[in-house]
Amino acid sequence: MHKDQTDMSTAERIRGGDIRLASRLIRNLEDKNPRAREVVKELFPWTGRARVLGLTGAPGAGKSTITDHLISSYRATGHTVGVLAVDPTSPFSGGAILGDRVRMQKHAEDKGVFIRSLATRGALGGLAAAVDDAVHVLDAMGMDRIILETVGTGQSEVDVMNNAHTVLLALTPGLGDEVQTLKAGIMEIADLFLINKADQKGASKLYQELMRMLNMVSEHHSGWRPPVLMLRDIAHPEDFAQQVEELRAKIDEHYQVLVDTEVLAQREYRKARLQFLNSLRTSLLDPVVHELEESGELKDIVQRIADKRSDPHTLADELRSRFLR
Amino acid sequence: MHKDQTDMSTAERIRGGDIRLASRLIRNLEDKNPRAREVVKELFPWTGRARVLGLTGAPGAGKSTITDHLISSYRATGHTVGVLAVDPTSPFSGGAILGDRVRMQKHAEDKGVFIRSLATRGALGGLAAAVDDAVHVLDAMGMDRIILETVGTGQSEVDVMNNAHTVLLALTPGLGDEVQTLKAGIMEIADLFLINKADQKGASKLYQELMRMLNMVSEHHSGWRPPVLMLRDIAHPEDFAQQVEELRAKIDEHYQVLVDTEVLAQREYRKARLQFLNSLRTSLLDPVVHELEESGELKDIVQRIADKRSDPHTLADELRSRFLR
Repeated sequence: MHKDQTDMSTAERIRGGDIRLASRLIRNLEDKNPRAREVVKELFPWTGRARVLGLTGAPGAGKSTITDHLISSYRATGHTVGVLAVDPTSPFSGGAILGDRVRMQKHAEDKGVFIRSLATRGALGGLAAAVDDAVHVLDAMGMDRIILETVGTGQSEVDVMNNAHTVLLALTPGLGDEVQTLKAGIMEIADLFLINKADQKGASKLYQELMRMLNMVSEHHSGWRPPVLMLRDIAHPEDFAQQVEELRAKIDEHYQVLVDTEVLAQREYRKARLQFLNSLRTSLLDPVVHELEESGELKDIVQRIADKRSDPHTLADELRSRFLR
Repeated sequence: MHKDQTDMSTAERIRGGDIRLASRLIRNLEDKNPRAREVVKELFPWTGRARVLGLTGAPGAGKSTITDHLISSYRATGHTVGVLAVDPTSPFSGGAILGDRVRMQKHAEDKGVFIRSLATRGALGGLAAAVDDAVHVLDAMGMDRIILETVGTGQSEVDVMNNAHTVLLALTPGLGDEVQTLKAGIMEIADLFLINKADQKGASKLYQELMRMLNMVSEHHSGWRPPVLMLRDIAHPEDFAQQVEELRAKIDEHYQVLVDTEVLAQREYRKARLQFLNSLRTSLLDPVVHELEESGELKDIVQRIADKRSDPHTLADELRSRFLR
């Protein structure tokens, strides 16, 4: 039965490929709009089909270029591709500032590609929750592959990567202490290492350092030892495209290992746990903060703390007995 | 009146300089121990005296060296110094992994210096709350200066810097797209830029790029235009020490501007707001998660989500009506 467009719910229209509505929904999720959350609930039954690829690395590591080539590769085999670029947010401007999406404009006319940036406002750690939901939206839209691009190696980036089946870490030679970065959290979640601009000075040293680190890990998850791929610079686009095919083969190989071992189920469990905790935080905290803001009480509380007439913990604990059963 | 040691509360003993108890308290704060929170409540009346310096930058930017020299400088003028090194945490190992604290061992015997690393476990974004509290502990202990060292430019690092009166961003030449990093959130919170290893190739280019960026900002907070300091390499320690004196003078100058304008009060208000919201999150969420864990209900919930029998939002919202009044 074919419903008339106007009779269809927002969720149904997004499932049907309404790009404009999907974009608006993602924007509303960033803004923590409670109605957006309800739409995501309706979309859940149609999620779980997409393969999610995480791509992280310092600015300048070539993430956009890699994403661009992966899109072309997936499109060539008829797969739809969604891209979420997760942007750190300035506490002042409150806006998304990350990189140059211009390079991706060549996919702008392709209905099989959906690219969005995602930022978050406020200090309640809503970024991870918004990313969880945006991935669900792209998944429900029918995107076969979702590329989740983040900058850096902070805790929030690690949390975001919880959504990925396979995590790629892009590195470039030249930054002397690059390997030190790896120790800071991301090392253990990377399933594939990419040395981009591998024709530059220092690439083989970086390769050796990575190998040494990987050798130090006595046991790799599910017997998967993260491979280190060298991507030469893009002076010859055809050459680069061929290297991206190799990368894509490795990604598929890793996914197959997840399926063949128990690790996929473990990851799905871990993902479900973090998503639930992120959702619980939104569900319990947002209405309380909203009420305190609307009544003007929040302003009084903050002023009392700033004036040292009380402290945050005492006031928060007083509210606990008022708001929690 | 002099109380016997055994009659004194934990808070009183920490105020009296009990390093061992302070260390244990900070560890308990990382572990979200509810009793640790009560001790911090008792310490609050003795906070607000310390000046807090934030120091951030990529790994290898020389933060430890700068901290080390700042400690020596402050000690030489009789100031006590606390250092908190905030470490990104691996979701697997759960432990603090950051850098080389070995360099700081020369201060190990000095009772006027207190250095601790701080990490966080779990996915509920407790890092910022633990840092807020640890700063209060060092403040109440009587540390005149507190140096808060973080890696990277993720959202959690920006949140942590909320505690600082003055934020230093350390950069090194060589990483081509370093300035691109700056756009990602930290640019607008840096009060001072340091180009470390400024005798290396690319330093003047980096300097010029920073200047261009700073020129683009039409209005600086409180009329303070962030200065860019060049620190040459530490081949000649005396020379470096002299440069650190200049840095220290700039830090003092910035603090004086905060005092002379309304900006200090604005920052104290913003800090109070974020600390309260962090505390409220702990206060409302932790008891609920604890109860769900203890009863085994959390495990069932997560399994239902992983099996796609339900979704995180539906289950979280059901709990809201059960737990919230």
